[in-house]
Amino acid sequence: MEATTDLVQYLSGFVTGERLSRFDEVLSRRTRYITVVLEDIYQQHNASAVLRTCDCFGIQDVHVVEQRNVFNVNDEIALGASKWLNLHVYGKAEGQTHGAIALLKKQGYRVVATVPDKDAVPLEAFDLKKGKIALLFGTELTGLSSDAIEQADEYMVIPMAGFTESFNISVSAGIILHHLGHALSQSDLPWQLNSKEKNELKLAWLRNTIRNPEQIESHFLAGKK
Amino acid sequence: MEATTDLVQYLSGFVTGERLSRFDEVLSRRTRYITVVLEDIYQQHNASAVLRTCDCFGIQDVHVVEQRNVFNVNDEIALGASKWLNLHVYGKAEGQTHGAIALLKKQGYRVVATVPDKDAVPLEAFDLKKGKIALLFGTELTGLSSDAIEQADEYMVIPMAGFTESFNISVSAGIILHHLGHALSQSDLPWQLNSKEKNELKLAWLRNTIRNPEQIESHFLAGKK
Repeated sequence: MEATTDLVQYLSGFVTGERLSRFDEVLSRRTRYITVVLEDIYQQHNASAVLRTCDCFGIQDVHVVEQRNVFNVNDEIALGASKWLNLHVYGKAEGQTHGAIALLKKQGYRVVATVPDKDAVPLEAFDLKKGKIALLFGTELTGLSSDAIEQADEYMVIPMAGFTESFNISVSAGIILHHLGHALSQSDLPWQLNSKEKNELKLAWLRNTIRNPEQIESHFLAGKK
Repeated sequence: MEATTDLVQYLSGFVTGERLSRFDEVLSRRTRYITVVLEDIYQQHNASAVLRTCDCFGIQDVHVVEQRNVFNVNDEIALGASKWLNLHVYGKAEGQTHGAIALLKKQGYRVVATVPDKDAVPLEAFDLKKGKIALLFGTELTGLSSDAIEQADEYMVIPMAGFTESFNISVSAGIILHHLGHALSQSDLPWQLNSKEKNELKLAWLRNTIRNPEQIESHFLAGKK
């Protein structure tokens, strides 16, 4: 922890003050209270739009499950958003959904499947106070797998008032993350990152921003000996 | 009005009772308190996703302005949503934005430009009570034209907390229409259609649903003589 703090301080000297305060501003809005799980998303523009949305609303962790499809990020659309997120990729294989959900439950997440099902909990009535949540979003054509549906603890729906019965995945994620993210930021819930997490993230962002970070870090470490 | 009512009643005999009650249910949630203006959207998947969102949240009128680009609806994505909406298309020509906005102002709309500008009114603080609104959404790469920005009465932004500075147009429309649509439905504002409007819409939907509506209508009119 202290070593990280020293290194962060040293590397901070290599970026502008403006950049540093932007880092702090963004860090103060980051959360792991909500996390996102994308199952088998295969259209690049959707995948990338969801990552952009996560960055915009402060969702730090995105779990990418590849059961049948490989997740491709279109960087033009993601506008580099993935650079600032922690992507946890469960590489293409059967049963990845099962593993990812089990892991998240172990970490204390309530696993919430987003479904076009009228009997599910309406987004606006969803209770964030019951604990941190992992939101599952399914593949474009068929939605979440039966594995995901079976393992989920809760179900959420965006209430709809028209003839169309479902949204595009990126629109759906945008609506849900905006609504819950806003509700979270207005709440007294412990949604912010702790200082250790902030420090680690800042280190990763500094490394992403500085040219030749390895060289600079070697220099720093040599000076410490 | 009365002629429409009679015709609606007659045509209602040609669809199932289930279909009719679906029409009434959807009609009870339709609004013209919020209307959407799309300026020069050229990516089919965006255009179509926005139409689907409008149908889902009960927005009946969509104004499509083509200054430089022709608006194409991808029906696979729109899932037939456009069939249930009133699309007002201002065909490809210079100055169409100007004309569309002038018309909406004449109809009593507050014209609200959605912009990625931190000084604009945050979505969550936007006051719907001041009157009905027309929301302007701009083209994918460059956003709203200077014409649109200059003519707008008000400006709205989705507050963002990350490094990415803007959303995809369909995500942006989804977030704004969900938030305002929900607020509207919870309010005492006069957002519903009046019975004349409902009747006209029902007639259009019946015509969209029945096979050979012209033939059936001729038969009905002949019977009235």
